[in-house]
Amino acid sequence: IRMPEDTTQDIIFVTCTAPVNIAVVKYWGKRDEDLILPINSSLSVTLHQDQLKSTTTVACSARFKEDRIWLNGKEENINQPRLQSCLREIRRLVRKRRSNRDPGADVLSLSHKVHICSENNFPTAAGLASSAAGYACLVYTLSRLLSVEGELSTIARQGSGSACRSMYGGFVQWHMGMRADGKDSVAEQVEPESHWPELRVLVLVVSAERKPVGSTAGMQTSVDTSSLLKHRAEAVVPGRMDEMIQAIRKRDFSTFGELTMKDSNQFHATCLDTYPPIFYLNDVSRRVIGLVHRYNRHYRETRVAYTFDAGPNAVIYTLQPYVSEFVQVVKHFFPPETNGEELFYQVIKLCCERSLREILPLPPCRAQPGPGPRMVEDTSLHLLGPDGLPRTSA
Amino acid sequence: IRMPEDTTQDIIFVTCTAPVNIAVVKYWGKRDEDLILPINSSLSVTLHQDQLKSTTTVACSARFKEDRIWLNGKEENINQPRLQSCLREIRRLVRKRRSNRDPGADVLSLSHKVHICSENNFPTAAGLASSAAGYACLVYTLSRLLSVEGELSTIARQGSGSACRSMYGGFVQWHMGMRADGKDSVAEQVEPESHWPELRVLVLVVSAERKPVGSTAGMQTSVDTSSLLKHRAEAVVPGRMDEMIQAIRKRDFSTFGELTMKDSNQFHATCLDTYPPIFYLNDVSRRVIGLVHRYNRHYRETRVAYTFDAGPNAVIYTLQPYVSEFVQVVKHFFPPETNGEELFYQVIKLCCERSLREILPLPPCRAQPGPGPRMVEDTSLHLLGPDGLPRTSA
Repeated sequence: IRMPEDTTQDIIFVTCTAPVNIAVVKYWGKRDEDLILPINSSLSVTLHQDQLKSTTTVACSARFKEDRIWLNGKEENINQPRLQSCLREIRRLVRKRRSNRDPGADVLSLSHKVHICSENNFPTAAGLASSAAGYACLVYTLSRLLSVEGELSTIARQGSGSACRSMYGGFVQWHMGMRADGKDSVAEQVEPESHWPELRVLVLVVSAERKPVGSTAGMQTSVDTSSLLKHRAEAVVPGRMDEMIQAIRKRDFSTFGELTMKDSNQFHATCLDTYPPIFYLNDVSRRVIGLVHRYNRHYRETRVAYTFDAGPNAVIYTLQPYVSEFVQVVKHFFPPETNGEELFYQVIKLCCERSLREILPLPPCRAQPGPGPRMVEDTSLHLLGPDGLPRTSA
Repeated sequence: IRMPEDTTQDIIFVTCTAPVNIAVVKYWGKRDEDLILPINSSLSVTLHQDQLKSTTTVACSARFKEDRIWLNGKEENINQPRLQSCLREIRRLVRKRRSNRDPGADVLSLSHKVHICSENNFPTAAGLASSAAGYACLVYTLSRLLSVEGELSTIARQGSGSACRSMYGGFVQWHMGMRADGKDSVAEQVEPESHWPELRVLVLVVSAERKPVGSTAGMQTSVDTSSLLKHRAEAVVPGRMDEMIQAIRKRDFSTFGELTMKDSNQFHATCLDTYPPIFYLNDVSRRVIGLVHRYNRHYRETRVAYTFDAGPNAVIYTLQPYVSEFVQVVKHFFPPETNGEELFYQVIKLCCERSLREILPLPPCRAQPGPGPRMVEDTSLHLLGPDGLPRTSA
């Protein structure tokens, strides 16, 4: 990496990747819309980036006339408020460092404009927390470009709440915090990804009807109308966070899985208690839930757990010895090709198994918890070309 | 009607009918399994018996060797505990009256055995609170046969909780009561059926997958595992009962409808918060819910409200001026025959409209709130023949 003040170089490039995270104690509802402060703490597992990741290249140059951004090859409005929050907060950190330590060093980088290019290696249609990975990647890449350190999760949080959890690998909690300015609403690693080597994560992509209500609008309506959500946030989640952290520390899959399923169900219950009600699960999701409970009942222990975010796709947590049998069971009950009808053909696609791998050119995946954001050293992988414009766009 | 002590008659017959009721504040969860005492009060509308009803004939004779019961033409076990509770409690009232007023008058009737024959005029597959109508009809018919009066709703309650509400017409609340013996857990009429002449009730029969979890088992699991149910019963329902009663008294459909929808959604939310979760709504139910909200949004007022019991079928409350348009809208979005595929053919059947009327030989129905149980004077309508055995069975 070359520093931006290196003016022998016309354009400075930095490329980083960041992971998706899947909550096992769910975030739903803000107490502050602008700062994105949640009504309860949450906890997630960071997925390995071999499987799903965001990649962002940021270029910085005196030649650029304005900040610009491309998402998945398409230029987007840079003035979107959450994007502006992230840029503003990162630049504030740069100024703070300058005034503290090294006056004058960052003058150039602060006046320079940036070009941002971001891509996900998974279909956005899959509804897999793409904004969390995306904002984590943006903030991390900017921080590396501008050489700032410090509490970056609060900046990612202002892009997309759950993005703060993608700033760390392994098992990550997002403390709701108490302060009005949100300074204590930060993510923190509970255990690193190496802590529980047997844990596995599968993504079952249910061919989705389009998400009927976006997360931002949905959670606001829930906060406004659901008394069950208020009760959940105040009376249920605090105890559940403690139990979940203990289960993770002890690698107690039975407790971890049961809490994960209960929390997913309670989140969707509060969506149903919203007025008008919000439904993210469909009949296929419900059949997956039924299958998991029957499977566990068969073995008289919790070997597999499901969780659903704001969409019909299931994320499955299990342990290494059970993966292949459970995948066979899913294939049996949701045969991808045996039935010629479109309904069944589209029912379920297994990530890390044939179906989704056919769609995505993924390397053999590591269906395990993974590390946090990281920089890409291979400059041929920059998403922006030597001219500072996306390689893939016209 | 001839009294049982009229021994000039070999067999005494009494036939009565009783209505279905559909709750607008739902009952879910018992604090006492044997006495069937609920964890919250509830409120329902009694449907008119032109539409849906239970019919019960009870015959009483010194010649009968044992109590027997036939349900929908099939003999069932008379020793089922809830049936025994109702028989025992009714006979206790007879003994009480005898000891109080008229010693000796009922000696014969108390020693006589009964034959009970009960039928619903609607398909049990439709999942329309058949046990509530059935137990109300049984208790009412026995009370007429044995000439007992007094608090009968507590007896019907011991057959099936919500049966107590079918003992009255119109708008009926079931007070949860506080006593351990359940004496104050009674039904009470809030307003008679004549109170709100414009109110209409439609039943949309969604072709159902079989009910996955029965109400009795389901509500017990909910009480054991759902903290949201506990919160609902303690913190939400008491206020909602008051609001609902006021809305009914004022004939305020907007408030009545909105509370009805919210309460249905919250009931299903607590089912989802149960572990393992219980699902009664399916994708078709969810589309009906979406349709109602879109319809109301179009008119910027609540003209139509849905409610769902422990099954996928929708009950719609609306006002007389909106019935025919809303029925057309439903037919438009759920065409019963235009689509040859079985999925769509079975999707929805409109009671009171062509489809269900083709199945059931119903008189033109009155889709309004209706009266409570009543005696059938036409002796040709007895379900038991002169020999005291079902007319319809072999």
